Amino acid sequence: MAQSSDSNVFEDNPEHLFGVGPGFSLAAIDPASTPAFGGRKADGKAALSARSPRLAQLQERLFAEGRSGRRRSLLLVLEGMDTSGKGGIVRHVVSAVDVQGVQLASFGPPSEDEERHDFLWRVERQVPRPGMIGCFDRSHYEDVLIHRVHGWAEPQELERRYSAIQDFESKLHEDGTRVLKIMLHISKDEQLRRLSARLDNPTKHWKYDPGDVDERYRWDDYMAAYEAALVRTSTAYAPWYVVPADNKWYSRLVVQDLMLGALRRLNPQWPPASFDVEAEKRRLAGS
Amino acid sequence: MAQSSDSNVFEDNPEHLFGVGPGFSLAAIDPASTPAFGGRKADGKAALSARSPRLAQLQERLFAEGRSGRRRSLLLVLEGMDTSGKGGIVRHVVSAVDVQGVQLASFGPPSEDEERHDFLWRVERQVPRPGMIGCFDRSHYEDVLIHRVHGWAEPQELERRYSAIQDFESKLHEDGTRVLKIMLHISKDEQLRRLSARLDNPTKHWKYDPGDVDERYRWDDYMAAYEAALVRTSTAYAPWYVVPADNKWYSRLVVQDLMLGALRRLNPQWPPASFDVEAEKRRLAGS
Repeated sequence: MAQSSDSNVFEDNPEHLFGVGPGFSLAAIDPASTPAFGGRKADGKAALSARSPRLAQLQERLFAEGRSGRRRSLLLVLEGMDTSGKGGIVRHVVSAVDVQGVQLASFGPPSEDEERHDFLWRVERQVPRPGMIGCFDRSHYEDVLIHRVHGWAEPQELERRYSAIQDFESKLHEDGTRVLKIMLHISKDEQLRRLSARLDNPTKHWKYDPGDVDERYRWDDYMAAYEAALVRTSTAYAPWYVVPADNKWYSRLVVQDLMLGALRRLNPQWPPASFDVEAEKRRLAGS
Repeated sequence: MAQSSDSNVFEDNPEHLFGVGPGFSLAAIDPASTPAFGGRKADGKAALSARSPRLAQLQERLFAEGRSGRRRSLLLVLEGMDTSGKGGIVRHVVSAVDVQGVQLASFGPPSEDEERHDFLWRVERQVPRPGMIGCFDRSHYEDVLIHRVHGWAEPQELERRYSAIQDFESKLHEDGTRVLKIMLHISKDEQLRRLSARLDNPTKHWKYDPGDVDERYRWDDYMAAYEAALVRTSTAYAPWYVVPADNKWYSRLVVQDLMLGALRRLNPQWPPASFDVEAEKRRLAGS
């Protein structure tokens, strides 16, 4: 299944298929499904490769704009249970562009210093600069996900955080940052397979955290926390997408498509020269 | 010319060929040369690709160690005249590893905030964390290069900076960071060709800075400033390498080889499990 770099590979637009809107139910999405894509794994991988140059070109234009005074950027927020493939999105989708135009940030348990500030403080310091693609591996949403599941925040505080998140993302949008929020949705069975694979391979032991097994006992609580957060914070200016992620090749292709869609709408353009091109040619020739 | 991923592609070790030691003279290095490599451009590109997986594997082990408590890292410092290919090293050599293990930092003219601090202040904040590969696109050396050429620092102040740099890099080394400093050495003629190419292509105009032509009139001063800095700060713990860079494919292959050498000496190992593997297998199966 050959693909030109900018043709549609999905029979329906992933923005419509996976966007969180009215009546959303997490249970209605099958993590093992691969909707609107006619091919198999090899086809999906080929399509991902074929479309990478287009992603790279759009990114370079956005970066060039940023260097020339425009203040637009893209922020990809990646959430999902452990082993859902967040790191793989960075390696296999985002890394196809010039990494000098990418700002990666990973949000683990907060440091003591971070604990002393409001939950958005450490996130605000990592928002993408003009022209950049920001990529969050986990994010401010941890403060309404794990905090809800473990009861570290009361319902009233969770409400305050949802509102603070909306205000924060609305401000980002106004400042020129397009916010694209992705939940990589895996099944509990698929997580079991992936954690087992880590245990079976000594070169993967460093990635294994016994604490992940403890969290599996709270799986349903996590799904409820995700659904509440998604419904409460999916907006027109900062939409959530829930991407079936039991098949890594499929989730990567979907995330790439969502990024392509966001960048195409930004429609970045090569900046015009801020100098007299012919005069510079003469000056350069004499140097 | 097929290459296995870890065989030597150079007839002589680039560390010996390009290391800055006693009797060093910048003028003795021909930027257009491609010493100790028997192949052509296509062979060089093939060798670069063939060795990338090895670089990625060593990086992943280093990263894994960092996650498991060891405090070692690698810092690549890239210097060179405009258009010498610093960005290309990041795109074509460094990006072959998982970018989540790479810390990029680019040092342009200092901000007002940075101006208020000592010249090393902004650099110290960007040194690689344990397990990471840091990559500086320009660096603290700007403060002894452009500052010397333009006379922004007196000879006595330059001496202070050379010493401060040595102390800083020695401390880095003691803390477990291997420092690898590269000058990408291009000829004035090659720079003319590269700047002309930018002027001839409207999608490259944003990369063109008329100020670069002004600096061309100071070419010899820059070469003298480089030579002084290289000789003054090339040490056993933080050596400088001057890499012929008129041929991008060659300079990339050399930098990759220098990185491979530094990582091989670090010899990072997969960390052993910090938990009882068999007990975890049982616990996971029951979750």
